[in-house]
Amino acid sequence: MRRTIDWADGAVVIIDQTALPGEYRLLELRTVGELVDAVKRLAVRGAPALGAAGALGVALSAHLKGDVPKDAELLAHARPTAVNLTWGVERALGKLGQGEDAVLAEALALLDEDERLNETASKHAAEIVLAECPRRPLKLLTHCNAGRLATVGWGSALGVVWHLHERGLVEEVLVDETRPLLQGARLTAWELAQANVPYRVQPDSAAAAAMARGMVDCVLVGADRIAANGDVANKIGTYGLAIAAHHHRVPFVVVAPSSTVDSKLADGSGITIEERDAAELTEHTPEGAQVFNPAFDVTPFDLITAVVTEHGRFEP
Amino acid sequence: MRRTIDWADGAVVIIDQTALPGEYRLLELRTVGELVDAVKRLAVRGAPALGAAGALGVALSAHLKGDVPKDAELLAHARPTAVNLTWGVERALGKLGQGEDAVLAEALALLDEDERLNETASKHAAEIVLAECPRRPLKLLTHCNAGRLATVGWGSALGVVWHLHERGLVEEVLVDETRPLLQGARLTAWELAQANVPYRVQPDSAAAAAMARGMVDCVLVGADRIAANGDVANKIGTYGLAIAAHHHRVPFVVVAPSSTVDSKLADGSGITIEERDAAELTEHTPEGAQVFNPAFDVTPFDLITAVVTEHGRFEP
Repeated sequence: MRRTIDWADGAVVIIDQTALPGEYRLLELRTVGELVDAVKRLAVRGAPALGAAGALGVALSAHLKGDVPKDAELLAHARPTAVNLTWGVERALGKLGQGEDAVLAEALALLDEDERLNETASKHAAEIVLAECPRRPLKLLTHCNAGRLATVGWGSALGVVWHLHERGLVEEVLVDETRPLLQGARLTAWELAQANVPYRVQPDSAAAAAMARGMVDCVLVGADRIAANGDVANKIGTYGLAIAAHHHRVPFVVVAPSSTVDSKLADGSGITIEERDAAELTEHTPEGAQVFNPAFDVTPFDLITAVVTEHGRFEP
Repeated sequence: MRRTIDWADGAVVIIDQTALPGEYRLLELRTVGELVDAVKRLAVRGAPALGAAGALGVALSAHLKGDVPKDAELLAHARPTAVNLTWGVERALGKLGQGEDAVLAEALALLDEDERLNETASKHAAEIVLAECPRRPLKLLTHCNAGRLATVGWGSALGVVWHLHERGLVEEVLVDETRPLLQGARLTAWELAQANVPYRVQPDSAAAAAMARGMVDCVLVGADRIAANGDVANKIGTYGLAIAAHHHRVPFVVVAPSSTVDSKLADGSGITIEERDAAELTEHTPEGAQVFNPAFDVTPFDLITAVVTEHGRFEP
């Protein structure tokens, strides 16, 4: 499978995640403005993939002889919650003094690393899942999309599923559809179908009932930002899922590359939570309806069984 | 406002809840088959309104000189979870020996009662909310639709909002959109808008984050069946909401007429949970996606602050 985001012939090429699963479509983004727009409308999304977008955006700006610091600013603020975006931007920017080619080389190195580090992080996490959950085969539950499409390749939380599925240890993955943008129903379901992993899509609100019925051995999610104390910002609904898992003594495992850790943040209370457009929720409401539409929530570390990066268990 | 379900000129007349909020449309159902179909596709829904549908359906069958016992059977099994449906059917059937007019009179008496009992139950519940929640004005959260549209009139959980709003005590109602059929976003939002109560619609998965932010003083929901020990079956998502409320020490109040109590059921484990059609969830999934789509879940009594009927606090 090709990378979610890559560089080809002077353009940033992405799999258009707004078109999946109906259509598999590539977009060639030839200006920083196009890339920023793609990030804002979630054509490319997922914290690790956003890190790649940040780095490639800086490379694109340098390639176009653009106003690199200004473009870097635009890229870094395209979305506020994922720390990886700023991290990717800054990493590529650090090579600007060495010229355009050095910037691009750094961005491409970051892409290679992302695949490798997610593969490693999810391998560590798979071992933790096997140690925490005695039942075989495993019934897993995931929220949103923390798969190949959320990263350059391989995936974080879904990466654990790939490792376990290779060993024949996955009975089923329950996929929260993940309102309002349905990243679970659209993207995670698509990835699982591609990989022939048995799955079922459920309303987000069915997760607690599934746990009560013994349908969940472990919850696996990704992360958009991890504070120094281990608090995790992730897709809205993650926090409620963690409370429900805790209530049922179901292990709750977060998987992310260490670029998701924001060591400057003492705890989750400092994480900026993006509020998204009302239109995501008002298709069927009465006219003039107001909404509460935060894209993320914060799960305190004490509700999490393990936060896992390429270094293994994260220790606050 | 007219009744959600009523009798007029030999027909059962309902507000078509599949068309709201876009269109306010009445349906005249002139055969039991039409009524059963309306129940199955949720054109009329909500446990108390289903009780009325059951009774009026028997009256319609008697009026049409139909096979009343067979029609009663069809009506009682149109949906499996709400006990009120069977209760309404049986109450009207009990008058069959006294003739068609007696059956209709019994059904109409049940309709009158439903309005009165929900008004009383929600008044009791309002007092409990005021006693449990010190902050004024109140920030309330509700799931699905337990309003006028779920009953013959007035409403159960939303009935509490009407009482509190009359007294100027409601700051805002957060409305879970309630996937997959969006009864919150469509019906509850519509009722609140009609009544000029400030509200915001949110993804179901945002409820826990709203509690963490101090946006919820009390959760109010209805019920589809209440077991003898106080366990409550209600719209899928209610259970997760109750776990989250418990975690945040937010009072969680269930409001329903006593016809919702199934005293023959010792506890919630015996409640049949309707699984609904996959098509409710597969609009945006990959082709061939399997789903887990239970319409209801069961909340154990120990997570509930109070179950309130027209008799006040329900004591198991």
